[in-house]
Amino acid sequence: MPKELHVCLTPALIPLYQVEDYIVVIIDIFRATSSICYGIDNGAEAIIPVAEVEECAAYREMGHDYLLAAERNGEVVAGFDFGNSPFSYTTEKVSGKTVVLTTTNGTHALHLSRSAKKVVIGSFLNLTVLCNWLKNQNDNILLVCAGWKNNFNLEDTIFAGAVIDQLKSMNFKWDDAAISSNDLYRLAKDDLPGYLAKTSHSERLKKLGIEKDIAFCLNVDITASIPVLQGEKLVKLMP
Amino acid sequence: MPKELHVCLTPALIPLYQVEDYIVVIIDIFRATSSICYGIDNGAEAIIPVAEVEECAAYREMGHDYLLAAERNGEVVAGFDFGNSPFSYTTEKVSGKTVVLTTTNGTHALHLSRSAKKVVIGSFLNLTVLCNWLKNQNDNILLVCAGWKNNFNLEDTIFAGAVIDQLKSMNFKWDDAAISSNDLYRLAKDDLPGYLAKTSHSERLKKLGIEKDIAFCLNVDITASIPVLQGEKLVKLMP
Repeated sequence: MPKELHVCLTPALIPLYQVEDYIVVIIDIFRATSSICYGIDNGAEAIIPVAEVEECAAYREMGHDYLLAAERNGEVVAGFDFGNSPFSYTTEKVSGKTVVLTTTNGTHALHLSRSAKKVVIGSFLNLTVLCNWLKNQNDNILLVCAGWKNNFNLEDTIFAGAVIDQLKSMNFKWDDAAISSNDLYRLAKDDLPGYLAKTSHSERLKKLGIEKDIAFCLNVDITASIPVLQGEKLVKLMP
Repeated sequence: MPKELHVCLTPALIPLYQVEDYIVVIIDIFRATSSICYGIDNGAEAIIPVAEVEECAAYREMGHDYLLAAERNGEVVAGFDFGNSPFSYTTEKVSGKTVVLTTTNGTHALHLSRSAKKVVIGSFLNLTVLCNWLKNQNDNILLVCAGWKNNFNLEDTIFAGAVIDQLKSMNFKWDDAAISSNDLYRLAKDDLPGYLAKTSHSERLKKLGIEKDIAFCLNVDITASIPVLQGEKLVKLMP
């Protein structure tokens, strides 16, 4: 039996899948899963994704010695250590530390996927290492796009298409969303920044003055780690 | 202010939109909205879409002189007049009649969209007449793909992209789903049957032995009517 390779285009569609039957890859390219991949690769002990700034603050009140990352409208919230920019997740800042990261879309997608066989994190930063690992699993794969407020976005879909492209030689059965994601990726791949410049999210992020973050999140294969969900924490997957 | 041109990729995402702010186009290419466009163009007085065979049968019990169309697994259900094939919606069969049509995905999408400014029906059969009418409206437009069991399908998305292609000269603001649908349509347009042959739904329909229906549903601009929702009935939109 060929295994299934499916793309869930928004978290609102996760209930349509039996996530227990899949390895799930969470995708939130601008910027949560890119920052998570970078942070874990740079030696963060763990990253804990939460949905709300208040939840994030609660970790400090618990007395944990965690770094707290919270941002609203592109600004670091007063009293927090840093925001969601991948540039905050350098070795100097996060090595050996646990980071609590506020991310609405990414956390929502993670929460709805937690009963999966395994939940791993994908971004262009760890594309090939992720795909090589996926090739060696013997399970159905569900690529979950975190999207934007439960709706479709192009950057997460394009990344799903990039994963599918690398898994082409495998004998997976694709659904329509996988076919579409891959076709869109193939249109975009020779100029990812140019293609994505026309998306709504990119416009929104530009207004926030974080074009450098966007460009950084489109770097392909600059990290070698796969973050995996263990309980509430994302940690480095050990081969 | 430019108007919005949005694509709702599955009925599960309709609650994310304020449908009151839009003219909604319902799209269910294989085969509900194609059959509806063909039937209305061939003189059906009205078509009433219902979700379940039982609802359809209830219309006969009410004593209405309606044609009842119900199908399960590609076969006309015993006691009904015909199924969902567009070939059942010829002038000889439907002219002057009201047809009750059982269609799960299409009815679901219609039901969730009924508070829209207007609900019209789209298919390749009435593509250009529909687009010309849309160009003369002064409202936001939401193209609702009926999909398959609340999830994404490629044929409805491709058709949304075809509508967008014709509205390109208008100053609409597109969302990411509109961008993607249009890009997919542009990949597919020179060989719609070939492109759609790789979809899951097409495979499913092939198993049902209805390849002729599929081919018919991809005929572009063979009808000149736009079905519009009035109460529970779809009737011909009068200019």
